[in-house]
Amino acid sequence: MSKIKTVDYVVQELVKLGITDVFGLPGDYNFNIVEAVEKNKDTNWIGCTNELNAGYAADGYARIKGYGALVTTYGVGELSAINAIAGSFAEFVPVIKIVGVPKTKDIKNKTLLHHNFSEPDYHAFERAFSNVTCTTAFLDETNAKKEIDRVLSVFINEKKPVYLAIPMDICDFEIENEPEINIKKSDENILNSALNHAQKLLKKAQKPVIIADSLIERFLSVNEAKEFIKTSGYPVTTFIMGQGLVNWNYENNLGTFTGRHGNKNTYDYVNSSDCVISIGAIMSDFNTFNFDMKFTPSNYIQIFGDYTVIENKRYDNVLMKDMLNRLTKIVLAKNAELPKKVFEYTKAPVARGAKLDSKYIYPRIQEFLKKGDVIFIETGMVKYGFALMKQPEEAMFHSQVLWGSIGWATAAAFGASVALKDTDKRVILFTGEGSHQLTAQEVSSVMRYGLKPIFIILNNDGYTIERLLSNDPMASFNDIAQWDYAKFAKAFDGDIWTARAKTDKEFDEALIIAAKKQKTKMCYIEIFTDKMDLPELAKRMVEQRQANKPSIS
Amino acid sequence: MSKIKTVDYVVQELVKLGITDVFGLPGDYNFNIVEAVEKNKDTNWIGCTNELNAGYAADGYARIKGYGALVTTYGVGELSAINAIAGSFAEFVPVIKIVGVPKTKDIKNKTLLHHNFSEPDYHAFERAFSNVTCTTAFLDETNAKKEIDRVLSVFINEKKPVYLAIPMDICDFEIENEPEINIKKSDENILNSALNHAQKLLKKAQKPVIIADSLIERFLSVNEAKEFIKTSGYPVTTFIMGQGLVNWNYENNLGTFTGRHGNKNTYDYVNSSDCVISIGAIMSDFNTFNFDMKFTPSNYIQIFGDYTVIENKRYDNVLMKDMLNRLTKIVLAKNAELPKKVFEYTKAPVARGAKLDSKYIYPRIQEFLKKGDVIFIETGMVKYGFALMKQPEEAMFHSQVLWGSIGWATAAAFGASVALKDTDKRVILFTGEGSHQLTAQEVSSVMRYGLKPIFIILNNDGYTIERLLSNDPMASFNDIAQWDYAKFAKAFDGDIWTARAKTDKEFDEALIIAAKKQKTKMCYIEIFTDKMDLPELAKRMVEQRQANKPSIS
Ligand SMILES: Cc1ncc(C[n+]2csc(CCOP(=O)(O)OP(=O)(O)O)c2C)c(N)n1
Ligand SMILES: Cc1ncc(C[n+]2csc(CCOP(=O)(O)OP(=O)(O)O)c2C)c(N)n1
Repeated sequence: MSKIKTVDYVVQELVKLGITDVFGLPGDYNFNIVEAVEKNKDTNWIGCTNELNAGYAADGYARIKGYGALVTTYGVGELSAINAIAGSFAEFVPVIKIVGVPKTKDIKNKTLLHHNFSEPDYHAFERAFSNVTCTTAFLDETNAKKEIDRVLSVFINEKKPVYLAIPMDICDFEIENEPEINIKKSDENILNSALNHAQKLLKKAQKPVIIADSLIERFLSVNEAKEFIKTSGYPVTTFIMGQGLVNWNYENNLGTFTGRHGNKNTYDYVNSSDCVISIGAIMSDFNTFNFDMKFTPSNYIQIFGDYTVIENKRYDNVLMKDMLNRLTKIVLAKNAELPKKVFEYTKAPVARGAKLDSKYIYPRIQEFLKKGDVIFIETGMVKYGFALMKQPEEAMFHSQVLWGSIGWATAAAFGASVALKDTDKRVILFTGEGSHQLTAQEVSSVMRYGLKPIFIILNNDGYTIERLLSNDPMASFNDIAQWDYAKFAKAFDGDIWTARAKTDKEFDEALIIAAKKQKTKMCYIEIFTDKMDLPELAKRMVEQRQANKPSIS
Repeated sequence: MSKIKTVDYVVQELVKLGITDVFGLPGDYNFNIVEAVEKNKDTNWIGCTNELNAGYAADGYARIKGYGALVTTYGVGELSAINAIAGSFAEFVPVIKIVGVPKTKDIKNKTLLHHNFSEPDYHAFERAFSNVTCTTAFLDETNAKKEIDRVLSVFINEKKPVYLAIPMDICDFEIENEPEINIKKSDENILNSALNHAQKLLKKAQKPVIIADSLIERFLSVNEAKEFIKTSGYPVTTFIMGQGLVNWNYENNLGTFTGRHGNKNTYDYVNSSDCVISIGAIMSDFNTFNFDMKFTPSNYIQIFGDYTVIENKRYDNVLMKDMLNRLTKIVLAKNAELPKKVFEYTKAPVARGAKLDSKYIYPRIQEFLKKGDVIFIETGMVKYGFALMKQPEEAMFHSQVLWGSIGWATAAAFGASVALKDTDKRVILFTGEGSHQLTAQEVSSVMRYGLKPIFIILNNDGYTIERLLSNDPMASFNDIAQWDYAKFAKAFDGDIWTARAKTDKEFDEALIIAAKKQKTKMCYIEIFTDKMDLPELAKRMVEQRQANKPSIS
């Protein structure tokens, strides 16, 4: 049996998961780890401007490649990134958080080293992370090999972040190079029970409907879900977190579920179904448009990553993939009477030099998007703009609807650009300027690594979504610092094309140029609207809210 | 007894501590809190670009005004700031972390709201914070008044961060307006025992010496310490975290303790003392220059915020103030034979247009600094440059030597500028460009609020301090994205004067102009040196390290 250094073993196992780029910042406690990443021929070190951004980038990367990795230094570095990890945890994005910690000897002696408290508490940060990860491990000579294998097993099975602390001296410690990763399997008996139960429901169902959502992708079950959808012939809607999962032109696609204010036909169909099958759906306030559903999900069939709930009965150890595969085999195809598909955005109006507003922006973006695009949509007004959008074939829409940490999309789009650097897919970011400010310096990393995403920054003079929710829309706390974003982006070294658009015509032209420039460089477009310019969906929600007060958020 | 809304009560009590500016970002769970801050006539809301920066700003503010406050939204906001709070915790900077959380009802029902996990865990973030704060509280109708009073008592007594979660509905809940804050007092008996013990040591001491450090300021004992120093006549040195505490021209001031590589006379004097009295000293690796002391601190007298250790015996409930006051009364003045004071930086060389380097920068800065300046020094090479600097009267040098989270200084200098906005004190930031990148967008907040600090950004092409510590100084992971910093700063709206200096002459001129411009606007100077240009102290440490290997860090 051959031996290998602990740190090299970790990197080797990450490569097996498809991780070829590792995000983070160096620090004197993690040099060994960063060096191991640089040394391994299959991995690149991607230095970021700060740890939160690095965490978001790893999240964006994992959304594309299935898994991501983040390396920081002890205390200061890891805590800076904890919010990103919590977001990955909330949304089932498997990012491994690796941290270089002081030497075992110093930990034992409680030496007062930098990045600690005046009464040293060497496990304080691991404890903090235990609240936002599936599991944590702190390596030493006695547990290194076993703990790495355990942590990686959890990582792969749960599809959620895990935390691994490697003391400086343990990096070089030699362990057996014989990975023992335990991959979870479905429990055959429970799976059968779940299937029987499901079959009963499906048999008597007159109007079944499928809700497809983001966890399908996370649990690597896209093909299985597609197969089930096709074979069953059941009409299917997606939640906004899952936009793009179902081909827009697929005849049984009902479009995106956006509550009563969006596509009314979809809303009515779903709500009159007598058997809802949700696959990988996150039933959160925003994703369900404020629980705007007339049915109780758990009364029907809910398929999750490693369990299924049917009529309130939970079947554990049932993997999504297996459940879908088997359902596909037993399902009896149904011909449904489908509602008319409504396209909220048809053709963009002709650009005549008018002041730019949502009426032009979103239909125009809809035209701009093309097959295979990877789109990152930030929390804020833009989310409502995209909710009603048609989706081109194989395009994927990523948004952090449950966790909703603003700033995420900018850095996540950077991470996704790294993941897609050897493809010709376009990465397109759409963010409000308020959100952008939180993490905007990561634009410099985009350029440093020669990536070519298209960033579109919506400048509507402050936190518009919050204006809608505050007692006083003009309260000054929803104002923000004014930036010249195009100028900002040009302060960084690298190849970039920038534009500012205040009219429909300028935006139209910017997109036409960006479509070309994007092949060779980053494109960065700042667009302007009025403070209170709202996408159609938001407008309707506000109107109803003013009428009878359920909140927009 | 009058009643008051919970949230107004909190704000009212913060004002009593001198908090007139509250930092943070709004979010839909904290509107009530932000509104209360805006509404209270004694407090201003200071909106920041992101929560980590807001946390650092509150820390910088608290270092000046004694206390600081940070308000964020639930989950996403608070976790983004946890590293700042941990830094305040490490260095005894009292910042209260207030978070707006969902409604009590939703928490009870475990409703799946945004900013939570798919299996909601409403106390997860409080638990995370319990590792980096003194105490936490989560308010409800039954405990609101009591918990606020308890948390504020701890805040005031411990001089460390505390965490307060206020559900949306509890903000409006009415409580008695009758604060019951318990201020800790010294235990008279223990204080006397400690004094007796100390007296014995001081009596037989032939060569006593005082180490003064940052916790003196934090425990609001500057005057008491000065009195003791003066009355005793003992020679006194400061650690780098306490630079500025003792008037440089005071005859018994030995200068800054910088280990064997700095002022040799100071080093020798301290290390040949037979009675070391440390006041508020943080005995960490960096602050002690790698424990480069020949004595064991606890063998002597160590005075901390609320306890004293003498010859390894710990006396709890002995407040620094009281201990110093009483020591002053019993101490017998001594005339010490002082070593010659050495000034490492004498006059700056004449600027002749040569390439800028440390030999010019630090002596020139020394000349530039003046009475009452408030200087923020980032972790990195600059720390070594400032360690050997003379300190003008009443100038204070702030650096985060124990926690050492880069990016801190930029945002903390912003917070300090807010604290000092109505004075004519100058706030001066000195930071490496690598550190600056982490939090640089806060420059826009400086301008937004019309503040006038001087920011000096040292651009030495990467993480130089890390180059010294890495196996390969040229390892690419210590390279960073290239920015044009002066251009960057000008992308923000507001009044700013920028300069770039590549030669001594350009730097000299920039400082001359900045000294004038600073009266009306922010000044931002980018200065360039070689990658491996090192301040004298760092150079000596590296040389010795190459000789016999104890690390620089
Ligand atoms: C990290 C974090 N801080 C604060 C919030 C609260 N928040 C939600 S949306 C929003 C404003 C977004 O503004 P912008 O990006 O300009 O979008 P707009 O709605 O104006 O188009 C804020 C501050 C959050 N979700 N995440
Ligand atoms: C939040 C955080 N991340 C990483 C580190 C590790 N670290 C310490 S110093 C440093 C580089 C500082 O570079 P710069 O500010 O350019 O200063 P220089 O030494 O080059 O003058 C880094 C990355 C840290 N201390 N804090």
